[in-house]
Amino acid sequence: MEERGTGIYSALILPDIQQMIEQGDRDGLRAFCEDLYPGIAAEILERLDPEDAWKVLSTTSPERQAEIFGFFSMPFQLELVRLLYAKDRQKLSRLIEAMAPDDRADLLERLPEETVEEILPLIAQAERADIRRLLSFPEGSAGAIMTTEYASLPEDITVREALERLRLQAPDRETIYYVYITDADRRLRGLVSLRQLILAKPDAKLSDIMEKDVVSVRVDDDQEEVARTLAKYDFIAIPVTDDQNRLVGIVTHDDVIDVLQEEATEDAQLAAAITPLEDPYLSTPIPVLARKRVLWLVILLGTASITAAVLNHYSSANVSHEWLVMFIPMVMATGGNCGTQSAALVIRMLALVRLTREENMRLAGRELVVALILGSVLATVALVAASLFVSLAQALVVATTVFLVVLIGTIVGAMLPVLFNSLGMDPALMSNPLITSLVDVLGIVTYYNVAKVMIALFGIP
Amino acid sequence: MEERGTGIYSALILPDIQQMIEQGDRDGLRAFCEDLYPGIAAEILERLDPEDAWKVLSTTSPERQAEIFGFFSMPFQLELVRLLYAKDRQKLSRLIEAMAPDDRADLLERLPEETVEEILPLIAQAERADIRRLLSFPEGSAGAIMTTEYASLPEDITVREALERLRLQAPDRETIYYVYITDADRRLRGLVSLRQLILAKPDAKLSDIMEKDVVSVRVDDDQEEVARTLAKYDFIAIPVTDDQNRLVGIVTHDDVIDVLQEEATEDAQLAAAITPLEDPYLSTPIPVLARKRVLWLVILLGTASITAAVLNHYSSANVSHEWLVMFIPMVMATGGNCGTQSAALVIRMLALVRLTREENMRLAGRELVVALILGSVLATVALVAASLFVSLAQALVVATTVFLVVLIGTIVGAMLPVLFNSLGMDPALMSNPLITSLVDVLGIVTYYNVAKVMIALFGIP
Repeated sequence: MEERGTGIYSALILPDIQQMIEQGDRDGLRAFCEDLYPGIAAEILERLDPEDAWKVLSTTSPERQAEIFGFFSMPFQLELVRLLYAKDRQKLSRLIEAMAPDDRADLLERLPEETVEEILPLIAQAERADIRRLLSFPEGSAGAIMTTEYASLPEDITVREALERLRLQAPDRETIYYVYITDADRRLRGLVSLRQLILAKPDAKLSDIMEKDVVSVRVDDDQEEVARTLAKYDFIAIPVTDDQNRLVGIVTHDDVIDVLQEEATEDAQLAAAITPLEDPYLSTPIPVLARKRVLWLVILLGTASITAAVLNHYSSANVSHEWLVMFIPMVMATGGNCGTQSAALVIRMLALVRLTREENMRLAGRELVVALILGSVLATVALVAASLFVSLAQALVVATTVFLVVLIGTIVGAMLPVLFNSLGMDPALMSNPLITSLVDVLGIVTYYNVAKVMIALFGIP
Repeated sequence: MEERGTGIYSALILPDIQQMIEQGDRDGLRAFCEDLYPGIAAEILERLDPEDAWKVLSTTSPERQAEIFGFFSMPFQLELVRLLYAKDRQKLSRLIEAMAPDDRADLLERLPEETVEEILPLIAQAERADIRRLLSFPEGSAGAIMTTEYASLPEDITVREALERLRLQAPDRETIYYVYITDADRRLRGLVSLRQLILAKPDAKLSDIMEKDVVSVRVDDDQEEVARTLAKYDFIAIPVTDDQNRLVGIVTHDDVIDVLQEEATEDAQLAAAITPLEDPYLSTPIPVLARKRVLWLVILLGTASITAAVLNHYSSANVSHEWLVMFIPMVMATGGNCGTQSAALVIRMLALVRLTREENMRLAGRELVVALILGSVLATVALVAASLFVSLAQALVVATTVFLVVLIGTIVGAMLPVLFNSLGMDPALMSNPLITSLVDVLGIVTYYNVAKVMIALFGIP
């Protein structure tokens, strides 16, 4: 697929920018910063090294700098901060002051504590208090992703007055498309959209046109809960309140999209037995990458040792028949695959909705029926496949085992995430390799016991 | 976690609604439909059976019906349509006429073709043409998810005029927060946000305040590309143009959130070797669920048969030593786990960004280095673990194999998705179980060959 729009800009504009930097054309660079959409300017600047990117940014106001800066990837933001920290802390603190409170909190959380403590005193008192408060919310909570720059108005004014006041608030609010109606104690009373304001009669009172049943989240709610709620109702922003129902911030649609992407990435990594990475893959240093991957691999090698011990047991107990070995991979793979499927379906469902106890039971029932169907089909296929190599009686041992491991895999795969979830843990912690390992051990035990019984019963060689 | 806001509403309001239905209190039901936020009303109505839900909806205007209806889950929408189709096709066509064009296209795509052909003639001419056009775009394209109800204005009018005209457009536009500036041929010339209009001087011309470099997508772009672009720039909506740069629709932030959720679910299912489901898990009939799962399970059982054949080969070639069997699961699991990890990292990265050829090479290099580190660590652990069961020389065979399968697993897991991607296929098609199966076969071959060589070389029993 060809890149349209922005790809073309980057290719066309980048050489011009580089020439302007060489010639010290500050007017040209300022025009670049101020005429383009900040997201596009950021995309182009991120192709320069941090020194040059700062040369460009320094031509414009801290406000515009902050707008562009907010679109940089986190690793590039950190590089620029390191540069400015070494070079000009005044400029750095102006930039940080001008940033949107939520972007700023994200950035400061990633900086070393000493750096933050050295920068903070350079920042204006009001902003500093705001920073400290946002940093105090636990990572992954509504408080940690919200912005405090929302538009709010009292309920007893007219639409005309509201539009006038909004004009004054607009320049430094994250959004003015939703206006929150609060009382003197900042308690959330209602919501008016800018669309409603535009359509309403200028003399109407806000209290008459506002929506009164405002869906909100609490400041300590999980960010996934925030994302799910905003997504469910198609909101542009959702208000965040404290335990007194006082408005403390808003979370906007773009932050929710970031949360959803982040959570999907985290779930995909957990599902593959990787401790989630903090940065994008290509920005993660190799030693970090190796560390995030090795932990689970070692644990899983440990569970494979248990499987080895089980096999050792059957071998010394002389249950072992040469032909059984051939189908160990088939038995293990089938059980593991069914477990992986069930886990994926259940984990993803739990990411999107919350289940009642009744629905949990329904889920278990469904998985059991599906397992019986899958088990029958796969046992038949396994019977045919195995009889290519061994006698029909021997193939029947394999088929019976396949039927049972499908049941085991499906039940383990579906129920462990539900169990984790109802214990208040992340269901995605139940990674596919972990489920596979458990099913492996159970599968081998099943296999050798089925073999023992059937060999004795039918006198299979 | 307790449900706040909406959970409380449902619990409180549902009994009232049921009582009003029994008493035939149409005024009360109309007030319910018209006073609550449509997303909340929909949530409550979905707890009723379709007959009762329609009794409630029928008390209000088709426009309001459509707003609430748009928030129902697809299975509930289909149930209601089936009910109305049997009962009152006039009412059904009024409802469909009033729906947002993108929601309507989603719904009609899920209906049997005969049903659509019977309903369409009952719908007004203009809407009908719009429906046919939206239905003509391939599933998963920008055209299929866009809405045609966007706000647009010419560039030569003043801000005052623009606000007046917007007031007229507002009631039936999906959003008026972004206003697209088009020329007489509907070619996209610029963009003005409602925030800019509110802040600008009433006498300013739109051509002076509009942003001219508008990021847009093409009508045949993939929906993932649309989602990535909107997400990157934090837009509320993104314009969709045809190959003449004429504006044909917009995709809004809430649709992008739906796409992102849908794609994450699809990727999680593909990763677990499930043909993606069309409906949420609990709404998918069991036979469909079984069918979506069995295909890959049978294919993977087939590849496990290849592994069986390989083991059979070594057994008849008499390479087989009893003690080797014990570590088959360990060798297989370790290779598979490394492959799963690499695939997950690469597939997720490819879902978020597009890689250049250079970055592909960098990726391969990184994975190779990581594989060497992981291989060394895991081989050491395997050496210790295996020496609990067998001699040190025998354990060395296991450790060497583990080192090699880590390399094989990592390379296969990382490179197959890249290969699929560069062939223009969905990298997520390379499911974890498929990678695991491939690595299983390669792992067993490696294991027995390493054993053969080392046993001969060092005279291991």
